[in-house]
Parts: sequence; structure tokens; C-alpha cells
Amino acid sequence: MRISELSRHSGVPIPTIKYYLRDGLLPPGRATAANQADYDEGHLRRLRLIRALIGVRGLSVSATREVLAAVDERQDDLHLLLGTVLGALPADRDAADDDDAADAADDDANAAAPDLTDVEALTARMGWKVSSRTPAAQVVAETLETLRVLGVEFDWRSLLPYAELADRTAELDLDQLRDAGGPLQQAERAVLLAVLLEPALLALRRLAQEHHSAQRYGG
Amino acid sequence: MRISELSRHSGVPIPTIKYYLRDGLLPPGRATAANQADYDEGHLRRLRLIRALIGVRGLSVSATREVLAAVDERQDDLHLLLGTVLGALPADRDAADDDDAADAADDDANAAAPDLTDVEALTARMGWKVSSRTPAAQVVAETLETLRVLGVEFDWRSLLPYAELADRTAELDLDQLRDAGGPLQQAERAVLLAVLLEPALLALRRLAQEHHSAQRYGG
Repeated sequence: MRISELSRHSGVPIPTIKYYLRDGLLPPGRATAANQADYDEGHLRRLRLIRALIGVRGLSVSATREVLAAVDERQDDLHLLLGTVLGALPADRDAADDDDAADAADDDANAAAPDLTDVEALTARMGWKVSSRTPAAQVVAETLETLRVLGVEFDWRSLLPYAELADRTAELDLDQLRDAGGPLQQAERAVLLAVLLEPALLALRRLAQEHHSAQRYGG
Repeated sequence: MRISELSRHSGVPIPTIKYYLRDGLLPPGRATAANQADYDEGHLRRLRLIRALIGVRGLSVSATREVLAAVDERQDDLHLLLGTVLGALPADRDAADDDDAADAADDDANAAAPDLTDVEALTARMGWKVSSRTPAAQVVAETLETLRVLGVEFDWRSLLPYAELADRTAELDLDQLRDAGGPLQQAERAVLLAVLLEPALLALRRLAQEHHSAQRYGG
């Protein structure tokens, strides 16, 4: 199909498609004339994936490129693929949208690496065989450190019931991949669910908080 | 205490404290001389809260100001306070860190509001008495819409087991507030846990995914 049809089928405007092509996120079509190329179903699928990663999750172009490369190269090793995808996503997904705030936050960015003892106690208690050097472990350690500095009574033992629920969530996640078809479909599904469900899971927690807070404290 | 002591006790550099004072996030100290002011424990506590919101969660200055105002004004109505705090946080916390990617994403930003029928079916099934007009409901609707467009077999019924776990997570969250002391302490604790736990909960899910993925697919 031509670029105009690709645009119509995907809902992505032509200038955006051209930007993705120029940036290498979308592979070039098959040249059919000096200034014309032909695109196939693979392009359409890839375009929808890019749109989800950038448009919905707000990933950077470089993180998106890394995720797409992982899908292409590691579809036969789902464990490695998942690790790459989760590694490509910043573990703390926030970004200050104010320059001055970002400058102020930079003061903290150079702080010493957090103590991992508590995270290691937590993962040992959970029976999780994971490295404490991953960005995710770092985030947990930083959160506990922050709560301690702030004088909030909340330590790694307080996180245990949350970790139990996270454990069951991860089991659900992996269940989603069982009957996904071939390796490429399984890999694509892994990326979509790993990447796209994060905001939805936090949103579900907020909806549930809204409900229970009204039940307990509502007037 | 003087600003230098405030800096030493909080670990926040003096220029950053001055920036927060200038920006009104931190109330002025009691003037003791032409160019000198006195700060108290309240300033120290507030400074640590700001540091957590901006430095750890990467909130913007304006969102931080809104959260702090809510703590001050609504400490007697925890349900309203929680609503304000959760409303001040963008429900989808991602921000593209690449200008071109942001431009490309903008094409999507003007898309029609998502269909809320599925979210309403989900919350009805869960027995959650919540509005489907909140940013959180919007995020769930957008995620389902994206998965549908991408042809992933995953609808609101697939989210139900996740919603069950989110429901139990929210119950845990509210349990944390029960014995927090007076209204101000309860309000501060609500903010800290609502705001700071989000990245940690996603990080716990990732650690659990890493563990279970190695168990199932590891070589």
C-alpha cells in the first residue's frame, strides 16, 4: 500500500509516518518509483506498536527503538526480551515538566546510591531470585530511604503485603502470554502488556482508592 | 534555625532552599534582621516533603504547590484531600523526553475522548462507586482502546483479576492511614504514600516479573 493508505489504515498522519521513517523507527518501504514506496501489513503492525509506545506511553524515540530492536532480535527468548523491554523503560517514569524544578531535582540526582539491604531482605523474604542491581530494586530502595528521611513509619516489612499483591500481578502478566501463538506474537504481546498496562494498573489503584476512601471517610 | 542549619538538617542545598522560598513552595521564615530569617521544625518538615515530591517523584512546581495547599487546607477531610492529591498528579505520569517524539505524540493528543462504556462495565462489576470522568478512568479507557486498535485480545474482562488486586492494594493503602495521629500527620502520610508508593509498586511488579519469567522461561 502507499503511504497515504498506510496513514488511513493506522490513523497516523503522513508527516508523523515520515518522521518515523527518517528516524529509523519504521523500516523503509519497497521502492516502486523514484519518489514512491510500497508498504505492507508488517509496516502497519509496527506503526501501531510505535504509536502505542510513543503516543500512549510517551516513551522517547531512543527507548522505543530499543524496545523494537528487542522484539525483532529476542523473540525466541522471552525472558531476555522481557528483561530488555523492562530495562529500556525508565523504572521511575516521572519527568519534571518544569525546568527550574528539574534543576532543583538535579541536586538530588547526584546523591549516593541507596542502601540495598532492605530490598534484599524483602526479595529474600518473598523468595524472589532477582538482582538488587536492577533499576526496579533501586526504585524500591530509594522509596524506602525517602520515607525514612521523611520520618514516615513505613519500612520494608510494611511493603511485604504490597509485594504479595505484586507477585500475584506478575503471575497474571505471565499467564497472558501463554496462548499468544508464535514467538513474534508472544514477544509483541509481552511488550504491549509490560509497557501499556503500567499506567492502567496505577489507574485501577486510584479508582479503588477513590471508592474505598469514600466508603471510609466520605461525608 | 538559620538557613544554613536548615540546609544541613534537610540535606537540601541553600540555593535550592532559596529557590523554593522565592517560588512560594516554602513559607518565609521569621525575619530576625535585615538580611536574616529564622526557620523552625515546620519548615524542615515542609522542605522534606517538597524534596520528596519534586526530587523523588519529579512533580512540577505547580503540581507540588497544589499538593501542599491541599495538605494545609483539607487536612480535616481526608477523602477530599486524597481526591485533590491524586487529581494533582497526572494520571499518566509519562512525559516524552524528546521534542520530536513529543510533537509526534501531539498528533494523538487531539484524538476523540475514549469510549467509557468498558470502564463503566468494569467499575460496576467491581462494585466501585466512582466517576468515569476522572483522569484514572480515562487512562483505563485509553489503554483498552489502544489494545483493541493494536488487535491484542485483552478487554475489560481481562482487567478484572487486575482490578481485584488493585482493590486489595487500595485497602492496604487506607489501612496505612488509620493510626497516623492527628489530621495533619494523617494528611501528610496520605500524600507521601499516595505519591511516593506508585513507582515502588510498579517496581515490585517488575521484580516479581523478573523472578517468575526466569522460573518459567529462563534457560
